[in-house]
Amino acid sequence: MLARQRLLIKGGKVVNDDCSVVADVYVEDGVVRQVGPNLNPEPRTGLIVLDATDKLVIPGGIDTHTHMQFPFMGSRSKDDFYTGTKAAIAGGTTMIIDFAIPQKGCSLTEAFDTWKSWADPKVCCDYALHVAVTWWSSKVKEEMKSLVQNKGVNSFKMFMAYKDLYMVNDEELYATFSCCKELGAVAQVHAENGELIAQGAKKMLAMGITGPEGHELCRPEEVEAEATQRAITIANAVNCPLFVVHVMSKSAARVISDARREGKVVYGEPIAASLGTDGTNYWNKDWAHAAAYVMGPPLRPDPSTPGFLMNLLANDDLSVTGTDNCTFDICQKALGKDDFTKIPNGVNGVEDRMSVIWEKGVYSGKMDENRFVAVTSTNAAKIFNLYPKKGRIAVDSDADIVIWDPKATRTISAKTHHQANNFNIFEGMVCHGVPVATVSRGKVVYERGAFNVTAGEGKYISRPPFPPYVYERVKQREQVN
Amino acid sequence: MLARQRLLIKGGKVVNDDCSVVADVYVEDGVVRQVGPNLNPEPRTGLIVLDATDKLVIPGGIDTHTHMQFPFMGSRSKDDFYTGTKAAIAGGTTMIIDFAIPQKGCSLTEAFDTWKSWADPKVCCDYALHVAVTWWSSKVKEEMKSLVQNKGVNSFKMFMAYKDLYMVNDEELYATFSCCKELGAVAQVHAENGELIAQGAKKMLAMGITGPEGHELCRPEEVEAEATQRAITIANAVNCPLFVVHVMSKSAARVISDARREGKVVYGEPIAASLGTDGTNYWNKDWAHAAAYVMGPPLRPDPSTPGFLMNLLANDDLSVTGTDNCTFDICQKALGKDDFTKIPNGVNGVEDRMSVIWEKGVYSGKMDENRFVAVTSTNAAKIFNLYPKKGRIAVDSDADIVIWDPKATRTISAKTHHQANNFNIFEGMVCHGVPVATVSRGKVVYERGAFNVTAGEGKYISRPPFPPYVYERVKQREQVN
Amino acid sequence: MLARQRLLIKGGKVVNDDCSVVADVYVEDGVVRQVGPNLNPEPRTGLIVLDATDKLVIPGGIDTHTHMQFPFMGSRSKDDFYTGTKAAIAGGTTMIIDFAIPQKGCSLTEAFDTWKSWADPKVCCDYALHVAVTWWSSKVKEEMKSLVQNKGVNSFKMFMAYKDLYMVNDEELYATFSCCKELGAVAQVHAENGELIAQGAKKMLAMGITGPEGHELCRPEEVEAEATQRAITIANAVNCPLFVVHVMSKSAARVISDARREGKVVYGEPIAASLGTDGTNYWNKDWAHAAAYVMGPPLRPDPSTPGFLMNLLANDDLSVTGTDNCTFDICQKALGKDDFTKIPNGVNGVEDRMSVIWEKGVYSGKMDENRFVAVTSTNAAKIFNLYPKKGRIAVDSDADIVIWDPKATRTISAKTHHQANNFNIFEGMVCHGVPVATVSRGKVVYERGAFNVTAGEGKYISRPPFPPYVYERVKQREQVN
Amino acid sequence: MLARQRLLIKGGKVVNDDCSVVADVYVEDGVVRQVGPNLNPEPRTGLIVLDATDKLVIPGGIDTHTHMQFPFMGSRSKDDFYTGTKAAIAGGTTMIIDFAIPQKGCSLTEAFDTWKSWADPKVCCDYALHVAVTWWSSKVKEEMKSLVQNKGVNSFKMFMAYKDLYMVNDEELYATFSCCKELGAVAQVHAENGELIAQGAKKMLAMGITGPEGHELCRPEEVEAEATQRAITIANAVNCPLFVVHVMSKSAARVISDARREGKVVYGEPIAASLGTDGTNYWNKDWAHAAAYVMGPPLRPDPSTPGFLMNLLANDDLSVTGTDNCTFDICQKALGKDDFTKIPNGVNGVEDRMSVIWEKGVYSGKMDENRFVAVTSTNAAKIFNLYPKKGRIAVDSDADIVIWDPKATRTISAKTHHQANNFNIFEGMVCHGVPVATVSRGKVVYERGAFNVTAGEGKYISRPPFPPYVYERVKQREQVN
Repeated sequence: MLARQRLLIKGGKVVNDDCSVVADVYVEDGVVRQVGPNLNPEPRTGLIVLDATDKLVIPGGIDTHTHMQFPFMGSRSKDDFYTGTKAAIAGGTTMIIDFAIPQKGCSLTEAFDTWKSWADPKVCCDYALHVAVTWWSSKVKEEMKSLVQNKGVNSFKMFMAYKDLYMVNDEELYATFSCCKELGAVAQVHAENGELIAQGAKKMLAMGITGPEGHELCRPEEVEAEATQRAITIANAVNCPLFVVHVMSKSAARVISDARREGKVVYGEPIAASLGTDGTNYWNKDWAHAAAYVMGPPLRPDPSTPGFLMNLLANDDLSVTGTDNCTFDICQKALGKDDFTKIPNGVNGVEDRMSVIWEKGVYSGKMDENRFVAVTSTNAAKIFNLYPKKGRIAVDSDADIVIWDPKATRTISAKTHHQANNFNIFEGMVCHGVPVATVSRGKVVYERGAFNVTAGEGKYISRPPFPPYVYERVKQREQVN
Repeated sequence: MLARQRLLIKGGKVVNDDCSVVADVYVEDGVVRQVGPNLNPEPRTGLIVLDATDKLVIPGGIDTHTHMQFPFMGSRSKDDFYTGTKAAIAGGTTMIIDFAIPQKGCSLTEAFDTWKSWADPKVCCDYALHVAVTWWSSKVKEEMKSLVQNKGVNSFKMFMAYKDLYMVNDEELYATFSCCKELGAVAQVHAENGELIAQGAKKMLAMGITGPEGHELCRPEEVEAEATQRAITIANAVNCPLFVVHVMSKSAARVISDARREGKVVYGEPIAASLGTDGTNYWNKDWAHAAAYVMGPPLRPDPSTPGFLMNLLANDDLSVTGTDNCTFDICQKALGKDDFTKIPNGVNGVEDRMSVIWEKGVYSGKMDENRFVAVTSTNAAKIFNLYPKKGRIAVDSDADIVIWDPKATRTISAKTHHQANNFNIFEGMVCHGVPVATVSRGKVVYERGAFNVTAGEGKYISRPPFPPYVYERVKQREQVN
Repeated sequence: MLARQRLLIKGGKVVNDDCSVVADVYVEDGVVRQVGPNLNPEPRTGLIVLDATDKLVIPGGIDTHTHMQFPFMGSRSKDDFYTGTKAAIAGGTTMIIDFAIPQKGCSLTEAFDTWKSWADPKVCCDYALHVAVTWWSSKVKEEMKSLVQNKGVNSFKMFMAYKDLYMVNDEELYATFSCCKELGAVAQVHAENGELIAQGAKKMLAMGITGPEGHELCRPEEVEAEATQRAITIANAVNCPLFVVHVMSKSAARVISDARREGKVVYGEPIAASLGTDGTNYWNKDWAHAAAYVMGPPLRPDPSTPGFLMNLLANDDLSVTGTDNCTFDICQKALGKDDFTKIPNGVNGVEDRMSVIWEKGVYSGKMDENRFVAVTSTNAAKIFNLYPKKGRIAVDSDADIVIWDPKATRTISAKTHHQANNFNIFEGMVCHGVPVATVSRGKVVYERGAFNVTAGEGKYISRPPFPPYVYERVKQREQVN
Repeated sequence: MLARQRLLIKGGKVVNDDCSVVADVYVEDGVVRQVGPNLNPEPRTGLIVLDATDKLVIPGGIDTHTHMQFPFMGSRSKDDFYTGTKAAIAGGTTMIIDFAIPQKGCSLTEAFDTWKSWADPKVCCDYALHVAVTWWSSKVKEEMKSLVQNKGVNSFKMFMAYKDLYMVNDEELYATFSCCKELGAVAQVHAENGELIAQGAKKMLAMGITGPEGHELCRPEEVEAEATQRAITIANAVNCPLFVVHVMSKSAARVISDARREGKVVYGEPIAASLGTDGTNYWNKDWAHAAAYVMGPPLRPDPSTPGFLMNLLANDDLSVTGTDNCTFDICQKALGKDDFTKIPNGVNGVEDRMSVIWEKGVYSGKMDENRFVAVTSTNAAKIFNLYPKKGRIAVDSDADIVIWDPKATRTISAKTHHQANNFNIFEGMVCHGVPVATVSRGKVVYERGAFNVTAGEGKYISRPPFPPYVYERVKQREQVN
């Protein structure tokens, strides 16, 4: 049996989503045991002490959206569960939620098992898995039930894009949403009109537009806004809570915000990419540069998009942040050299998300440090029913903790990042807000550039159904309406 | 050969959509020959003189949306092309545009010919035919082309509702919109999400809700707004002008208005029913009363809907008005006695549209008499390329003219109306604004309660493609983008 | 010296704004000492035990807006600081914030002292005082500084209405907002265009409209929306956080919500009245009934207003709830029998606020129990810098606690309420959600209908400037812009 | 006595706001006598013939907003009524409406007489005068009445900016709007919050920002939007139609558009400057360049502003276009070399308005040629009660006509323009759409670069009150409400 792990974080300002307070944090066996001034845990021997004076002590980030070692578009994403979670840790993120994605006609459970078998031996921090529903049948329904009841899955993603590959139609959306509602799961959608994308891509290629700019031109933001509106309408028809992944455009974000005002239970997830850069990059003359930004939905050419999304995130019109981290290197991207539809979709983010949001959100004055915690961990924990074990520093919480220096700066670069990829979409961005040390389940896994990680040390986290934050209203409406 | 028909309308205030002026109107052989003060056409013999002192002289109404003798839902609508157009004339309408609707898999041309064969021997005023596209194939495409080039059709309607019967999916919408754009036709949509309606109806019946209120409950207004947004998005993707028929809800109207602000070429058609009454009637305890209001999309329970739509109509956010006139009597409605999904959908309106809009629009101060003319005839004529033959009183225009008494009142009632139906959804409404006399192609077909009509006297009006009002911008965008 | 007060609340579900957990709460000397399962504080003697099984244990409500014994419009509001706070306690509210309001030209400090001298001997629960700024001079500026630094005031209210009495103009608003920003205070506004009200009232009276309906007719909701927009614009020009008191209309609420989306630091306070009833009451044929609802700004005749405001409150577009409790009995209201401008403005609410919000917000499914806590106490505590002493049940928080039965119901009535007034604007409303017991600073002051209060037992609560929840962003913006 | 002037414009496409038709136009004595195909007016002698084959024949432009030889900010605008109207003619504009602006406390009638005495001997085309109301008294009220009844004035402008110089407060606005409504005049506002501008300017100067960029920084667009909202609210309170001059920002335009949707009678006037360029110029490193763009309200730095305004103009959310032509040369601008508040406010536009709108509106595909006519002349004629004498080519209309070549291009430049100024804010813009010939009251005053003008040949145009386009609804509302 392992020796008792004991850690004291001294003198920092503990920042939760509701308020901040200068306090020490004492951790035993991966769990926070005490939070308060001047802690003096005995015995001193075997106690690791981290000095956090003048630093913030924040809950470790939760990245709600990653695709590690994802077999996609004829390739496989570069960061696997080892490099991906290691990079996450370096950036102050201590949990990721990845996606198990079955092919049409294939078993959801098998997909889940496959992904889990990939992750378990590699992960350096805790993780969970959303499961995609890419087709519909009574068997799918049974598998969803089983995944919820036996595998700790409480979220399912449906694609409204990727026609013929992953896309489901309105009838199937209705069925999956209904099923999620019954099971107490959160329905997720990739919201883009797949039909319009297919037609648009055909049209661009016919016009001789084959470069990365064609990627954006064939799926402008109204294609995203339309699908977002449609998903919300269908979900609302069955009183199912909805989580819109990777919100990329002002108009889609506005659709979500308006729906929330009307009382609909819907959450929007902007990502590091949409908050930190924009689609003007698709017109970069360097093909490799432009191709590196190709993802779906695309980044938007309107340069006021990131600021707009950040304002909504600050105001709780948007709720949480992920990355859609799905890295492909330049050789992989080159698969689409002559045809943008063949460029593997995906960008980095898992390492830099926290810094990008701090820089563009907190340093800019759009949100305060407490809201930063809310959108980088707390809200994700609430929505996916991990709270308050995750997403809060309090007695009995998991000791997923980051010591954050709000005054230090670092410059993002592919030369220094820890991801497997040779490109960084945030290259050159100077960020205030630097993770000094990262603690995962009470172990100091990263400190000032040095790692202390072991592949497979992270745990798969089961998520029970019916998260109260999401479902209490839903259940009450069911009763009174 | 007919004797020369000559008519002088004296002393009225001629109201066009741009301004009003006191003037006489002289008509020969169905066409306006002079407009001016103190006309004295020679010879006096054979000259019919109508005194319009203190009255308005307005272009005859154009009802852009009727379904006469329509075989639908196991029945056939009560008003045929004779009673329907006769009622229209009594109400100040001198042209209707009906719909030829083929079954899925059937020929569009045959449907057109069938409808025309029904109408030609019966119509008492001019008419035209929109054609519905209820399925898609290369043959359909050819038929659309032929209808445009040989039959004077410049508008096609697609249904997003009536699953399995008329509904087309997004791929088919994309194809039909593309085809309309090539041909210079106006694409029309019945905008409701057919999938949600099908599911909603199933749910209501399963809950034991079988009455007319279930009709509205299973297709709330967001079902209409969603489809409207989707249709606009798809049409815009192919730069095709769009005409949304029967706008019934505030949210759908808002979607259209917002799209217009963004420069999209889209027109909204509220109808007499949505401007003059509301969906609270579905909760009427008298089943027959409630059922009489059943139509698709349904009227909305929010009682501020009609005023809201009228404001938008006054402001050119909405453009023209139709009726969706499709009357079924109580015996026909009773087909759905135990199941609201079997109640034939349809209401009256062709006779009362002009009075309802005057009362709720002009008398209320929301619009002036010129805007009244715009929304009851001029804009329809412009959109469907009939202007300035129709929709304006000017030299060389067709003499479709109404003498309108803005000070007189009448009370709408099934007891006195001229429609074939035994119910009137506007029963009891006191309307300022009464048609005193109606002139169709220079013939006084109605005067103070007396008709002088002959079945078959109306003409089918060919409508050339590429209406400049609609298409000039579209073509220019094609060139510069 | 007092004996040590010790209280154990057993078996309830402790509800904070972030989550709920079944736990016991142990209180000593007015402060929460432990929260957790199966507490067993020793010694048992002298320990008061409250059983909260199957009940909720929530932070006591904070009413951000009351006017007790307010000398106004030729009268004085009926509820004084004794009856008012006693009624508050019966309803589950354990702190009120009242307003000290100097006449134009008079000292703010004197007003503060006067109000404090009225309150101190009478209050049964904790309280604080906002101070109104009704004129401007360098002396006013000094007094504001002194109130902030010496008297624990961190909020100042300016009136944009009540012309010649309290109203300040744009130049004065600019000055007061600037001063608030410097001092770290929250600027509050009564947002109505006072000029339009004055003119409107004159017009109504000239038209012979003297009854309570004239009150609403002369100040329609756009008068409120306009002032709200103006205040936000001015506050934003000086980067001053703004708190809009008594949000009464959909359009004003929309203005606030839109401003928040743009990143402006603005908070909206709907009140029990605007959330629970509406302005159709002004057309009640019983003058006394209609007059009883007269307040400024008025309730709105649009019956969808309360639901709309509740949706925004649920979604954090609006932030906190008060009551504007300012009761006048029928004899007082009769001062305006022949002239609605003389009806003393004010309604009840301090007792019923919590129940009304539970019923219309939680029971209806619009918000969950955690959001209920946020909008009834937590957010108020954050905005006015009382958090986490107030607004949270946690170790070291003040023991202001309510045991709430979410399943019980009560019917609101003037016959049974504890306010000094003989009318209740919520008469007959059946409310789920009943306060079973109220604890103020660790003392059980109310239990199942029985009071145990002492006048003067409540304390004046000093509020330090620069509440982090409000000001952290403001300060950061100052630095980076 | 003058010989009869006779003119035939042959073979062009006559473009009115409702439709276009190929037709000849025959003019006698300054008035259109015939419009139709193949006109052959006798005798041929003395008949001037203009060939318009492949050209458009459009109503001469009406510029609703100019300031010729305006004494302002210590200087006098460069273009006087001679050079100004000559330049107008070169650009296809045949009527201007200028402003007579009395000092506070001074007579409106005297101001009117003064301006008229300046204009009459100089104008080369027709003109009219709006009159400003810069203060309020019973004498002002009498003068307004007299100006309407005796001087042909039907519009009055009030300034919400220029504190202490021209600005009126809300009480005065209320009074002037009430007076306009009684008299049947159109109320106009310069909508900016003058208090915020005054404070903002002080702040900028205090911060050491003295250059032209300070001009925009001290009056950001919310300052304009706020005042616009306020003016609409006040005007609506007295049922007075409102005309917002120089709409410069997206947010102000949105306020107007939203008000129109709600049925308010309000018109927005974007100008050539706001439609054709933007406020990024204030950051130009060349002081003279930056200063040349200084006007109030300022152009906006958001580069999407012009396209946004053009979309709204195309959609009739905005109604007419002016220029605020008020030119100062570089020496005059230099008055503010060290203090942006002293830079004389004003830009050019009267010559280039038509071309700028054609280029950005019609050539871009945002509007068609008919809408172009509506927004450059017809709507102005309707609003200011000049229609159909002005703003339409029809029998009996004034022969103010422009032959327009939609295919030709010209490049705007100060080197070639005809204004008195040595700078052009549209320098370098290549415009499709060139005026080939301009006809004023039947006389060819400009043709392919050559002028045939005489100072004083233009006429002052009286405008009767109660324009039906504006007032019919207003009067009806008065009756039914």
